[in-house]
Amino acid sequence: MTEPARDAPVVVTGGAGAIGSVLVRRLLDAGRRVEVLDNFSTGRPEALPRDAARLRVTECDLATDPPEAPFRGAGELWHLAANADIRRGTREPETDLTNGTLATFRVLERARRADIPRVLFSSSSVVYGLAKTQPTPEAYGPLLPESLYAAAKLAAEGLVSAYAHSYGLRAYVFRFANIVDGRMNHGILYDLFAKLARDPNELEVLGDGRQAKSYLRTEECVDGMLTVAERASETVNVYNLGAVDRISVREIAERVVAAHGGRATIRYTGGAQGWVGDVPLQLLAIDKVRALGWSPRLTSAETIDRTIAELSARASAGSA
Amino acid sequence: MTEPARDAPVVVTGGAGAIGSVLVRRLLDAGRRVEVLDNFSTGRPEALPRDAARLRVTECDLATDPPEAPFRGAGELWHLAANADIRRGTREPETDLTNGTLATFRVLERARRADIPRVLFSSSSVVYGLAKTQPTPEAYGPLLPESLYAAAKLAAEGLVSAYAHSYGLRAYVFRFANIVDGRMNHGILYDLFAKLARDPNELEVLGDGRQAKSYLRTEECVDGMLTVAERASETVNVYNLGAVDRISVREIAERVVAAHGGRATIRYTGGAQGWVGDVPLQLLAIDKVRALGWSPRLTSAETIDRTIAELSARASAGSA
Repeated sequence: MTEPARDAPVVVTGGAGAIGSVLVRRLLDAGRRVEVLDNFSTGRPEALPRDAARLRVTECDLATDPPEAPFRGAGELWHLAANADIRRGTREPETDLTNGTLATFRVLERARRADIPRVLFSSSSVVYGLAKTQPTPEAYGPLLPESLYAAAKLAAEGLVSAYAHSYGLRAYVFRFANIVDGRMNHGILYDLFAKLARDPNELEVLGDGRQAKSYLRTEECVDGMLTVAERASETVNVYNLGAVDRISVREIAERVVAAHGGRATIRYTGGAQGWVGDVPLQLLAIDKVRALGWSPRLTSAETIDRTIAELSARASAGSA
Repeated sequence: MTEPARDAPVVVTGGAGAIGSVLVRRLLDAGRRVEVLDNFSTGRPEALPRDAARLRVTECDLATDPPEAPFRGAGELWHLAANADIRRGTREPETDLTNGTLATFRVLERARRADIPRVLFSSSSVVYGLAKTQPTPEAYGPLLPESLYAAAKLAAEGLVSAYAHSYGLRAYVFRFANIVDGRMNHGILYDLFAKLARDPNELEVLGDGRQAKSYLRTEECVDGMLTVAERASETVNVYNLGAVDRISVREIAERVVAAHGGRATIRYTGGAQGWVGDVPLQLLAIDKVRALGWSPRLTSAETIDRTIAELSARASAGSA
């Protein structure tokens, strides 16, 4: 197991996405060359720096036949590409199998054949399912996914682990809380803003509003990943990344309405699980990543407030 | 979530295999109609009763397009089909993706479309990887597979759980110890017998002989599954099935040599992990299944002895 050379390029799948594009900037700032692979289904070309001499972007479908060239000589693979719409995965069961499990297998095969020594994978807290232990530690089991999206994340974790053990790579698995920022075009805040843009008088909220989760800003999430990537050295390194606390959907909805002038009536659709596949209560134990020297700076409420401010500014600018 | 009608047929994938064929006999004995799906890669037609009026056998490839007809009106799906050769999965990484993960997805889709209310899946202790807790309970985590076979089992567990939660099925996940009997054509005992048939003077054993695992007879395993299927009633029911103790590879090899007249010299290839992808130490906590009223009757050593006797008889009969 060799450490990657500092001048070897870094492959980032989903590099034009919400988290990937922030990671790519950090890698470029650190002097790395970066190969982005993205199908631009949720990622946007304009999220990436345009003129960076050290950045190459390849549009491709990872699940069928990702190109070999970007992997050649690379020192690391950051595999962040995935379907971002959990509910679509329930309606169309092939979605996460293809864009999650199969895509992960294909890029791991590319990494193996190119002798890439390190693979870093963006998993999710959803692998825990409805965890009976909260905050939920990395050692929690059994892992009983609620959604096909979560099942694909678990499948990908298993593949990453098996590739590491069978073919001599080192692997990093990050289990994310809800990651948000004002540039995203999916997720609860984006959805609530879009609903209010359509009807400023009523805001429909899925569930009874008591679902409560932890939220982490994208830049904090990327910072946490880079810290773990630098400091953890097991064959497979599994780390939760989340905030220290939760915030309820009711509190989020009320903050969104307040940011829109307080006019809208909130209508809850009822049910403890907001939608099929949802994990209504989520709080991650982050002792393990803290022991490496990283902690979130913002609470979930602060993260939500900052992101609402960004989305409000974006809406005012007419680009929402 | 409705209970299956007692007269509805039961679908068994891998029904001609070592475990499947024993299960099929038990289901037929209980008066059920059975639909077997098998590609006969390791399963054998002769393992099934020939003239049972209540048994239909369909040869098919589950990973591409399993036929719809056997699923129509079925009350249960027992999904036992899988690649049985872990080392092949390391050499040919597509093997377990196709025959494990994809096949599981395709049969779950069939089950969903046919409104089959119960799915029962044969997983494996290998999902635990090199578990730091032994005996290993069902709640152990994180699950870090060593092999692509193990990764496919974990992926399939996740799919089964997601289908149960998303589409209203009830699911059973069985994590098996090493399951053995004298009819099998794979596994450590079969391999050691085959090696001695080729060279009666030397027996090569992969690893240092100190690998130690628990072994369960096929008929005990099937009995355990049927007990859990009858008595457990969570949405997703995860149960270990294994013996109360372990036996080392060295002890197994010595017993096999003794059964062959004690002539052969045992040659260990060295290394704590016998082969890439192996889990050298495995003992499952079985408190959970015991609480349902099932316990193994044989120790691992008794299971090995009985199976060696069967393999010896088979070798004498010239059919090994």
